[in-house]
Amino acid sequence: MVLAEQRLESFESDLQELIRITAEMGGLAENQIAGAIEALTRRDSERARRLLATDTAIDLMHRAIEERAVESIAQRHPGTSDLRYVIGILRIANELERIGDLAKNISKRVIEINGAEIPRRAMQGIDHMATLMLTQLRDVLDGFAGRDIRNAIDVWTRDQEVDRLCTSLFREILIGMMERRAIMAAGVHLLFCIKNLERMGDHATNIAESIHYMLTGNALPPDRPKADGSRALTLAAIGVI
Amino acid sequence: MVLAEQRLESFESDLQELIRITAEMGGLAENQIAGAIEALTRRDSERARRLLATDTAIDLMHRAIEERAVESIAQRHPGTSDLRYVIGILRIANELERIGDLAKNISKRVIEINGAEIPRRAMQGIDHMATLMLTQLRDVLDGFAGRDIRNAIDVWTRDQEVDRLCTSLFREILIGMMERRAIMAAGVHLLFCIKNLERMGDHATNIAESIHYMLTGNALPPDRPKADGSRALTLAAIGVI
Repeated sequence: MVLAEQRLESFESDLQELIRITAEMGGLAENQIAGAIEALTRRDSERARRLLATDTAIDLMHRAIEERAVESIAQRHPGTSDLRYVIGILRIANELERIGDLAKNISKRVIEINGAEIPRRAMQGIDHMATLMLTQLRDVLDGFAGRDIRNAIDVWTRDQEVDRLCTSLFREILIGMMERRAIMAAGVHLLFCIKNLERMGDHATNIAESIHYMLTGNALPPDRPKADGSRALTLAAIGVI
Repeated sequence: MVLAEQRLESFESDLQELIRITAEMGGLAENQIAGAIEALTRRDSERARRLLATDTAIDLMHRAIEERAVESIAQRHPGTSDLRYVIGILRIANELERIGDLAKNISKRVIEINGAEIPRRAMQGIDHMATLMLTQLRDVLDGFAGRDIRNAIDVWTRDQEVDRLCTSLFREILIGMMERRAIMAAGVHLLFCIKNLERMGDHATNIAESIHYMLTGNALPPDRPKADGSRALTLAAIGVI
């Protein structure tokens, strides 16, 4: 009985450590996004190159989290609800790695855009979208560190703002591409950068879902409120015909 | 001691069951991709709608796999290397869910394209790319079911073919978009469909990496051979200037 209690106590301390490293990984992902967007809005290829060079840290942390989780489970034999918590942390680390990959993809595109002209309004829109998405990510990571379910549900329902901005930006950039062939290649890169930001928002809501699962043992309903209209690219919709 | 042996035996039977469900989930994902590509090449919105209606099956299987894994670990107390195996299965189920999401995204775009004209050569290229990617996915899933590491490493190195095809298709579609404004919106949808296929290829290689980790306990080197050039969209590269 004393052995079981000791195990439980050690498990709780493992859990604290896993949460700490995962929150730290989240901070790194936030920095990568903020850096990539700054490089994009300033069309700063050098900055983008430096960001790419530091990218492996996130992947290494992901592996470390997974290894520690495996070791902790093997040694402490946690029960079902504690196990669910660890599996939730692994899910979140996975989402954060993907967010890091998307930020990396934006940095790579900044290098390809290579200082080419980009419509100023579109750039301001992207900056705004990134700010919204980063706020969501920060809120959900706060919810994770504080084991707070309200924050998680709030982010889960709030993702529509990012989706709506994505739609209007897509429209604007496509119209720009139609009017001026010269911005076509840069325009396509921008469309993918915007889509990357939208997907980061989706990953933030996935993290919110994982927090809900960790704290309640239940999944959120499969149909999250969605306002993604970046697919709605008919010519009529963008006012061309 | 007898108890420990019984646990081990029960764990092995849980593992077989988890592998079976995950392989089944893989089969569903393959069907979703093949269906989405068929709907795309035939511009068959009705088919795409039917595919979207059956999409939830993959998500439900993902949840079932996670729940069974948690229950099995809690009951059987597997050791480190067996645990690593279960964690690997969870990773693979996660990748398969994402592949399903990408297939769903293609189906949604088929509905948006709504029968609009698409250059025939681009369509043939997409069909070819999908065939390559599906072969990779099938090979890696065979490797998973057969616990065969050679298959996994083979897929891991072979992903370059899909990446190269992605680059040449991007170029072709962009040139088409520049020449004819009328295909601009459909062209952007196609670019995203192609990118989705490329990302499915990336998920297949992630599965290969997980199989390697499950069977050896080690990760593959972080730098996989990559030939992704869909980012390389300078005007010079596509022959416009």
